[in-house]
Amino acid sequence: MKKSLGAKTLAFPTPVWLVGTYDKDGKANIMTAAWAAICCSSPPSVAVSLRKATYSYGNIVARQAFTINVPNENQVREADYAGIASGKNEDKFARTGFTPVKSELVDAPYVAECPLILECRVSHTLEIGLHTQFVGEILDVKADPQVLGEGGLPDIDKVKPIIFGPEIRAYHGIGRYLGQAFAVGKDI
Amino acid sequence: MKKSLGAKTLAFPTPVWLVGTYDKDGKANIMTAAWAAICCSSPPSVAVSLRKATYSYGNIVARQAFTINVPNENQVREADYAGIASGKNEDKFARTGFTPVKSELVDAPYVAECPLILECRVSHTLEIGLHTQFVGEILDVKADPQVLGEGGLPDIDKVKPIIFGPEIRAYHGIGRYLGQAFAVGKDI
Repeated sequence: MKKSLGAKTLAFPTPVWLVGTYDKDGKANIMTAAWAAICCSSPPSVAVSLRKATYSYGNIVARQAFTINVPNENQVREADYAGIASGKNEDKFARTGFTPVKSELVDAPYVAECPLILECRVSHTLEIGLHTQFVGEILDVKADPQVLGEGGLPDIDKVKPIIFGPEIRAYHGIGRYLGQAFAVGKDI
Repeated sequence: MKKSLGAKTLAFPTPVWLVGTYDKDGKANIMTAAWAAICCSSPPSVAVSLRKATYSYGNIVARQAFTINVPNENQVREADYAGIASGKNEDKFARTGFTPVKSELVDAPYVAECPLILECRVSHTLEIGLHTQFVGEILDVKADPQVLGEGGLPDIDKVKPIIFGPEIRAYHGIGRYLGQAFAVGKDI
C-alpha cells in the first residue's frame, strides 16, 4: 500500500542545467534550471520552465534564444550558486569564474567550462502557472573533445552530469552502467 | 574549442519514466518516456512528450489523464521493454508482471511495483513537431513506505531511479551524493 505524499513537484531524476542568456545590455547571465527536458525529436527541441520573476525570463522573452549548459559534477558549487543568486544584481559569470562565449547560431552565450552545451531558438512559449515554459529548437550541440567517447558521442562518465532531487534538495552524480537501451528488455 | 555534434536530442540526464494509461476498452498500458520533466511548481505539473503514433497518445487524448511511474534500477529490463513494445498488440502489464492499480484521482492506472508514482490530469497539450507534449497537473505523489527517508520524503538511494543517456542509448543508476541544493553554492 503506497503512502500519499500530496501534490508535489517530486520525481527523480531531474537535470541540473544552466540556462545561458543575454540581458538588454548584452550582459551574459546563467541560471540553474531543473524543470527542463528534451521535449521533441523532430525538430530536436528542449523545454525549460522559468518563473516570470527571474532575470532570465525577461532575457528569453526579449532575445527568443537561450543555451542549455550541462555542468560537470566538479561544478556543483557553481551550479548551485547560479540557482540562488539573481542576474538582476550579480554578475554570475564573474562570480563563478565561468567564461561566456557568444553563440554563432543564437542570440545567447554558452559556458566555455561546461562539457556539453545546446544552442536553442525559442519556438513555443507556454504559460502553465507560476512557471512559463520555453521550448527551444536545438540548432546545435557542442561538446568538449576530451569528453567524447565511442562514435564521437559524449561519454556520460566523462561529462559527469549532476542529478537534482526535488523536495529532498540533494545533488547526486551519475552511477553505474545498467545496460543498453532498446536492448536489455528485448527478451521479456 | 568545442566540437559541433549537430542538431541532436542530446543532453544528460534524462529520466526513465513509465507513463500509465487506459485504452478505450479499459486495458491498462505503460510506455517508457525520457522526453519528460517537472514543468511547473504551482500548480505542480509534469510534462511528457509522446509521438502520435504511440498507443499511449490516443489513450491520453481520450482520457485526459496519465500516471508517471518511476521504476527502480532493478526494473531496467521491464522499463526498456515498455519502450520497445506497443500496447496496440501487447499487454505490457502481463508481459512485465507489473500490476495495474486504478488511480482514485485520475482516469489512469499506476504500477504497483514502482516505488514512486505521480497521478496527473492533463491541463495543456502542445504540438511541437514529431512529439506532442502533454502537461499534467500532479494531483498526488505516492511512494512505497520502504523507500521513505528523512522527513517522510523518498530517499533517492532507495528509490534508485534510472537515468537515460540519449544518443548513447545507455541506462545508468544514481551515483554518489554531491551536496545539498541551495546550500553548497552559497559561499561563492
